[in-house]
This record gives sequence, structure tokens and C-alpha cells, in this order.
Amino acid sequence: MSTLKSKTPDKSPKTARGERTRRKLLEAAEREFGANGFHATSIGEITRRAKVALGTFYVYFESKDEVFRALVAHMGHVTRSWIAERVSDAPNRLEAERRGVKAFIEFAREHRDLYHIVMEAQFVAPDAYRAYYDNFADGYRRNLEDAAGRGEIRAGDAEARAWALIGVSVFLGLRFGVWDETRKADDLADAVYDLLKNGLDA
Amino acid sequence: MSTLKSKTPDKSPKTARGERTRRKLLEAAEREFGANGFHATSIGEITRRAKVALGTFYVYFESKDEVFRALVAHMGHVTRSWIAERVSDAPNRLEAERRGVKAFIEFAREHRDLYHIVMEAQFVAPDAYRAYYDNFADGYRRNLEDAAGRGEIRAGDAEARAWALIGVSVFLGLRFGVWDETRKADDLADAVYDLLKNGLDA
Repeated sequence: MSTLKSKTPDKSPKTARGERTRRKLLEAAEREFGANGFHATSIGEITRRAKVALGTFYVYFESKDEVFRALVAHMGHVTRSWIAERVSDAPNRLEAERRGVKAFIEFAREHRDLYHIVMEAQFVAPDAYRAYYDNFADGYRRNLEDAAGRGEIRAGDAEARAWALIGVSVFLGLRFGVWDETRKADDLADAVYDLLKNGLDA
Repeated sequence: MSTLKSKTPDKSPKTARGERTRRKLLEAAEREFGANGFHATSIGEITRRAKVALGTFYVYFESKDEVFRALVAHMGHVTRSWIAERVSDAPNRLEAERRGVKAFIEFAREHRDLYHIVMEAQFVAPDAYRAYYDNFADGYRRNLEDAAGRGEIRAGDAEARAWALIGVSVFLGLRFGVWDETRKADDLADAVYDLLKNGLDA
């Protein structure tokens, strides 16, 4: 199992056109890595799908490892934006939790490739995988602390709660998003809402 | 990414000695797959570590795929036994949840290899991975239904709750077990207990 080192050369695009090309490469990488996995994907397949010359790839990325790593970060962004859009106008934190779970399950259903890539990152880019969830958890923790500060939820261990609630979404997304879609995302979100509103106690 | 098919030839040991040899092979496989991953591990490395002749391997398993698959099932067993031992004398379901979370985090800390192997199963044996969590969830769901039947917890969507609570344990185990051990398992379990006892509502 290879554990790739993180590298941060400055290959960020300087122009809008460069930004578009980089984005095309990331989108092609998403489809190739998502369909075939990291090991079976070559840079040539990514550039062919992106309709970009092989040499152009190296203007933006050092290696296959680096485009994979950039893709995982990009996907963290996409995931968080997707959820934020669907949660931002929730009237309170508990309602935001309900909508967040629903949004995550729907995200998993519509972005199986992304889900797959994040899972593979555990093995080919463990630090990118960890950063993906750390970023998630930092935002989540802050949201919970803010909500407790506003008196919307009981104060408590925001860090533990953040990781616990990420686990809730990821596993409901895996089971009822990626594996099968037999259950309504709304009903699953309602079950979580009920748990967070009332606890389990009789 | 290879997706291995499930096979079920009858190679189960017929004698206690056979059972011991099979167990030795599984333990060697656990260490090799855990340290080096599926792809970088060979059957020869497993048999050398187990101090068993190469031909003997094939008495018990068809292939590297099959020993990996058997190992994932074995680990599901080990994980559930570990938790059951620590939860079985809990006075009620909420207390069982607290002890279960604590046990899972401690399990993750003491069995990083196992954790790693289950995560890799997503890619090399997705059906074994799914079976691992399905077995977990079936037992969890039944426990929740029984507890609701006894009036220890509120009735509710036991299937959704089971998957949500598995996610809680897996992510707390990943973050505070596998990635770092800076926080006390007891405190994390208390945070989950508080959430399940009282919910999040102000």
C-alpha cells in the first residue's frame, strides 16, 4: 500500500483559461478514478477524457498522486457547498441537522463516484482523506458551538458531537445512498431529527 | 479496481488440528494484509508468517481473495464479540450504548490492522465489506427493537437508528482511536450517552 507524500508546488492557474483547464482535468480525473480506481487509472486516460494534451497536465499537476489529492480536496468543497446550500436557510440547528442528513444522503446518491474516491483516499492519500473529514468536522463543531451559544441546543462536547454526527451522515449515505435507495431520504432524516430532538430515552 | 466474486467451496476444517491451522493462516493474513494491504501481500508471505507449507494454504483457501474474504468475516466476529463482552451486563440499553461506544473506540486503538483491513475490503471485496456492516446492523436493530419492546427506549425507526449509531462508533473510532488517542474513550462515550439520553434540544 503506497502512502503518498503531500507536495505543494505552486502550479495554481494564473488565468481564467488556466482555471478552466484545471477544472476540466479534475472533472476527467473524477470520472476516471471514480470508475476505475486510483491504481488502474493513468494520466493519459485523464488527459484523453479531458481532451487536453499530456504535457498540459504537468502545467497543473506534478503527478497522478497530486491530481488525486487535489480531487479529494475539490470534492470536500463540492460536498460542503451542496450541503450548505440546502441547510443555510434552516430556522434552527435541529432543523439544519435534519436537512443536512437528507442532503448528504441525496449527495451520496447523485455522486457515487465522489463517495468512492473519498473512500479510496484512505489508502492512496491518507492525509488528504483525513483533511477531508477534519475540514468537515471543524465546520460542524463551530456550527454546534454557535448554536449552543444562541441557546438553540444544549451546550456539550461539540468536538465529539461533530464526529458522531458526521458518522451518522456517512453511514446513512453509504447504506441508503450508495448501496441502495429503497428508503426515502426524508424518512431517514426524520429519524435522525427525532433522535437529536428527543434522544432515545423512554 | 478488482471486484472479487464470492466463492463458497467447502474447505472448512474437519478436525481440531485443521481448525488450528486455518486460524494460524487467518492470523498471519491479518498481520500481512494489515501491514501491507491486499495488493502488496502474497500467499507466500502469509504461509511463511504462519509457518505453514504453501500447499497447506490451499487445503483451507482457494486464493488470496478468499483468505481476505474469510478474514473480513472473522474480524466481524472478533469485533462483535469484543463489544458484546463489554456490553452484555449493562443494566439498560442507554448504558449499553455508552459501553458500546467506549468498547468500539478501545477496539479501534488495539486493532488498527483490523480496522485497516475492513476499510480495504470496500475495494477488494465489497460484498464482504457490506456483509460486515449488515451483520452489525442486523444485531443492532434487533437490540434496539428489543429495548423498545421492554420500554427502555422510545419506539422508533430501528433500522435508521442502527445505521446512524454504527456511524457514530465507526467515526469516533477512526478519529479518536486510529488517528490519535488524545481523548479519553470514557469522555467520548459520555458525550454519546448524553446525546442519546437527552437529545440536542435546548
